[in-house]
This record gives sequence, structure tokens and C-alpha cells, in this order.
Amino acid sequence: MKLGDGVEQAIHCATLLAAVPEGGLLSAAAMAEFHGVSVSYLLKHMQALSGTGIVQTVAGPKGGYRLGRAPKDITLLDIILAVEGPEPAFRCKEIRQRGPNPLPASAFARPCQINAAMLRAERAYRNELKSVTIAQLVAEVARDDDGTIEARGCAFLAEHLRKPNSKPTN
Amino acid sequence: MKLGDGVEQAIHCATLLAAVPEGGLLSAAAMAEFHGVSVSYLLKHMQALSGTGIVQTVAGPKGGYRLGRAPKDITLLDIILAVEGPEPAFRCKEIRQRGPNPLPASAFARPCQINAAMLRAERAYRNELKSVTIAQLVAEVARDDDGTIEARGCAFLAEHLRKPNSKPTN
Repeated sequence: MKLGDGVEQAIHCATLLAAVPEGGLLSAAAMAEFHGVSVSYLLKHMQALSGTGIVQTVAGPKGGYRLGRAPKDITLLDIILAVEGPEPAFRCKEIRQRGPNPLPASAFARPCQINAAMLRAERAYRNELKSVTIAQLVAEVARDDDGTIEARGCAFLAEHLRKPNSKPTN
Repeated sequence: MKLGDGVEQAIHCATLLAAVPEGGLLSAAAMAEFHGVSVSYLLKHMQALSGTGIVQTVAGPKGGYRLGRAPKDITLLDIILAVEGPEPAFRCKEIRQRGPNPLPASAFARPCQINAAMLRAERAYRNELKSVTIAQLVAEVARDDDGTIEARGCAFLAEHLRKPNSKPTN
């Protein structure tokens, strides 16, 4: 079981966008540079975040991304479901019903006990992810920072922040 | 995030092997037939279970598999880690340390807060999986069964059970 690298990138981008002042934007190229990752790969994940309203996209040469709602209203679960899709990690193929000498479907009226157990674990995972917001992560970074991480972020924003007048495209 | 199909197959095989009487074995071919899956694919996962002691392998033309310990001592987590490997789903690449204007490593002395949050969720997931044993799943299937599932299993075992005299190879 492995989450794609896009999850780490998308969460870091959300925490970076949380530092963008009202009306400001960051391009995918700037965020990719800041995190040392591929722009084309990052764009794919920003589109996924945009599709679920976690970020807003402003089109055009001076366009870019901003958060679609307050950092306190964006959870890790929101981001992971946007990037990885909504399906649970365990995808029951009902192999209990296959094989020789098949039984009538009525023998399997109750959900497979294995699937039920796996889905309980998935719920525990998701509940934990739902309890963590971008606002909380930003506060934790600030708490542990002696000022150097913030200073680097401010210098980066000063160089890359965009302030367009256009409306978001979604 | 997706678990491979091997997880479902390995868990079902463990519950099937829990029904094998003392001294008996089932071949991978029989278990593949019972679940309607590919033998070669199943063999790979049985080897993974064997490598961690969840099953024992008896070599030879009358060989096969049996559980390596009591069903109450085999958890879903044991099986998933055997099949999928021990790494957590989220694999931090430390992208916070990349990009232009790198900071000294001392700025990142504390674990990334994002990684820490993801690992908390992984712990919640694993704790839930650790709380479910093969013995418990077998009991749940029996509880929900009107007898037809058990009868099919018994008929299958009567046809496919092996009773060799050889010692396990691991």
C-alpha cells in the first residue's frame, strides 16, 4: 500500500498557499520550484485540488492558485481524497463467491466479514486524517520554527506572489 | 492508495487454512481454485505469508500449506504487512528541504509535521487491523452462515485435503 508522491506535494502546497495574503496567487511553477518537484506532475495534483474546491484557479499569464476555503476548513482527508480518489484502499472482489460449486447469492447476503474489517480500519485512518487541518499544520510548523523557515517562505513569497484582478475560473 | 488483490486472497486463504484439521495441508492450486484466482499470483502471496511464518510450507508432490500458528495469533495486520511490506503508505520525501535557498539541516531537526500527522493515521489504521484475528473472522463467518458456506467448505476440504508425513521446509 503506497500513497503517490502527489499527496506530499499537494499537502505542502496547501500549507504554502495558506501563507498567501488575501488576493494573492502562486503559480504551479513557483510552488514546484519551492518544493524541488516536477511542474507537470504538480499541475496534475493542483487540478485535482481545484476539482474539489480545495484551491481556486485563476487563469491567464498572471494567474495561479489560492486556497478555496479557510485553512481551518481543509483537512488532510480532503486533500488525500482529492489526489488519490475516494475509493478505500481495500477493494473487495468478492472472491468468496467464486470458485467451483458456487452457492446462491442468498448465502452471501451479509457483507464479507473480511471486507467489513478492512473498512473499519479505513474508517479509523480517515477519521484521524479528518482531524488534522491545514491551519493546524501551519501552526505546528510555526511552533517548531526558530524563524528561519518563516524567513525563507517570506522571501519566496516576496519574489513569486501574484496579484491579479481576474476572477477565478472555478 | 490501493492494496493489491493479493491481500484479499491471502486473508481468505488464511481463513480457509484455519479450517484444515491437524496435520492436513492444502495446495496453492486448490486454494486458487476455491477462490477462482490465478495459481501463479496466489503462490507469490503464499510465499510472502510463508516468509513471515504465518503459514508453513511442506514441499513435494503431496505438499502444501498449513497455518504457522493458531488462528487467534494471526491478525489482519500480520497478513497485510507480509503481503504489502512493512513501509507506511505515506513515504515522506522531505520535499520541505528542497528548492531554492536551502536552509541548514538544523532548521529541520524536528520531523516534518505533515509526515507526523500521516504516521498517526497509519498507526490508527494498523491498530484497527491488529485488533482483528483470523479466529475472529472465522467465528464471524460461522455466526452469519446458515450452514451452506460451511457445507461447501467441508466438501471442498474432503476433496482437496492432503495428509503428508514430511516435515515443513521452513
